[in-house]
Amino acid sequence: MLTTWLTDRFDLTVPVVSAPMAGVSGGRLAAAVSAAGGLGMVGIGGEPAAALSAQAELARAGGRAFGIGLIAWVAEGRPDLVEAAIEARPALLTLSFGAYAQHVAAAHDADIVVATQAGTVDDAKRAVDAGINLVVARGGEGGGHGRNEVATLPLLQAVLDAVDVPVLAAGGIATARGLAAVLAAGAAGALVGTAFLACPEGLNKPAAREAVLAARETDTIYTTVLDIGRGIPWPTEYGGRALRNAFAEKWHGRDDQLRAAGERSDEAAVWAGQAVGFLRRERPAADVVAEFAAAEPLLRRCAT
Amino acid sequence: MLTTWLTDRFDLTVPVVSAPMAGVSGGRLAAAVSAAGGLGMVGIGGEPAAALSAQAELARAGGRAFGIGLIAWVAEGRPDLVEAAIEARPALLTLSFGAYAQHVAAAHDADIVVATQAGTVDDAKRAVDAGINLVVARGGEGGGHGRNEVATLPLLQAVLDAVDVPVLAAGGIATARGLAAVLAAGAAGALVGTAFLACPEGLNKPAAREAVLAARETDTIYTTVLDIGRGIPWPTEYGGRALRNAFAEKWHGRDDQLRAAGERSDEAAVWAGQAVGFLRRERPAADVVAEFAAAEPLLRRCAT
Repeated sequence: MLTTWLTDRFDLTVPVVSAPMAGVSGGRLAAAVSAAGGLGMVGIGGEPAAALSAQAELARAGGRAFGIGLIAWVAEGRPDLVEAAIEARPALLTLSFGAYAQHVAAAHDADIVVATQAGTVDDAKRAVDAGINLVVARGGEGGGHGRNEVATLPLLQAVLDAVDVPVLAAGGIATARGLAAVLAAGAAGALVGTAFLACPEGLNKPAAREAVLAARETDTIYTTVLDIGRGIPWPTEYGGRALRNAFAEKWHGRDDQLRAAGERSDEAAVWAGQAVGFLRRERPAADVVAEFAAAEPLLRRCAT
Repeated sequence: MLTTWLTDRFDLTVPVVSAPMAGVSGGRLAAAVSAAGGLGMVGIGGEPAAALSAQAELARAGGRAFGIGLIAWVAEGRPDLVEAAIEARPALLTLSFGAYAQHVAAAHDADIVVATQAGTVDDAKRAVDAGINLVVARGGEGGGHGRNEVATLPLLQAVLDAVDVPVLAAGGIATARGLAAVLAAGAAGALVGTAFLACPEGLNKPAAREAVLAARETDTIYTTVLDIGRGIPWPTEYGGRALRNAFAEKWHGRDDQLRAAGERSDEAAVWAGQAVGFLRRERPAADVVAEFAAAEPLLRRCAT
């Protein structure tokens, strides 16, 4: 069995956390990941607090530890979301992409581990200064929102050298080989999003699942125009990685012109990382988690 | 000792190959890397064949196996370069970025292992079809020229699944942690460029060395405008990653306008990958290789 700080702290059998992907990572997916030996997370965007509570209840129904992930810049104007998250008593709370330091003490008082995503070494150092327990070193190849300045492998090496708290790696980790890699580097585990995009337990729609199954590793784009086209005021330092579509191809790199034109994105963005090329078929979250467990023989083999 | 296909094939003690960086990787650096237990490479751009032969002689003077790396699109119009490379009897010849299949048989006849860099799964499959012995899975975070579509960690997982020949990882590997990661994933070793940019044995100028020592992991840019500004006709699918400078900031993303304006880049490009943030001081290549050897205890530790 793979044993790390992460597995010890949350009583896991596989050092994998499912990413809190808003619109995908509901309570059912979280419960399925946790039941399989990972740590499942519920991801919430700008939904009402009641929606968060309902998804957390679904996650809790699995009987295992689970996590909740909030978008920090959304939560800045929505204290009800942070309160609802803490009241749901997750084992792990992630607050990423915006100001989060003001919530750390309250979560700690409730015995909740607090994590945040770091896209640079400075992000990671600031997180530790804010009292964060666990840093997620997230490379630009990851799906959904974040920075695109540094890729996972160089970022992970740098963050592990820079901070003394446990570190998860995120971005591009989709197979046992990827998990073995980040564990060998010194990570306590992996935060995995894209690999769970074709699970029947997810909240994403069948069309989105078909799109990720058809995509290759070269079919994503990191851009800010998909949010501009949806009218969602993400801070511009956090673009998002999604499957290429006509809207992104048309406007990418021309943010100001898009704002002036006011064109709206009709096509829904399908957020996905470069690991999308590994998705071959729809399959339960338990199968995805079980595949990651094969990191153990890989690690044993290369140490002999 | 770390034992892989790479160390067995070339009689190395550390599974690291120094990248053939034109303008940096001369025979002295190659000899120093090989003497330290890695495989040192000489990198040649458009220089005369005599320059290649002279650098190869310097590499050979170290008494150990060495490699030569050519830029395939340059070599397409310069058969003398390929002939000189084969005549120099390197243990490894890399031909990357352009058509290379026509040279594989001649190199094999001279008992030379032939490798190429792959930036996508398709690149890797084509390489195997062409008879390549060793695929270098190079992620977009790497320095110098290549593709920027997929980062090292997801690319490595995908290439290892797709081909049956040995695979080296390249891009963002600058410490023992990074080497341990790619070995755990299943790579036969790492091809490392940026970590050797601050070695006194290199051909790069003191000013370039000072620039990389001052740079952080977020200070690079992947762009095609530096080559346009130098008047060098790199195929546009291969941009280059370099330290940000005023010229790149001014023109990046506006290739057509730059061509129309005809502005030349006065400032020399300093090619470097995201691993540039790890460079702290000038130090001999032997020290860099020795640091990579610490991947072994990292791998042992995480398998227990």
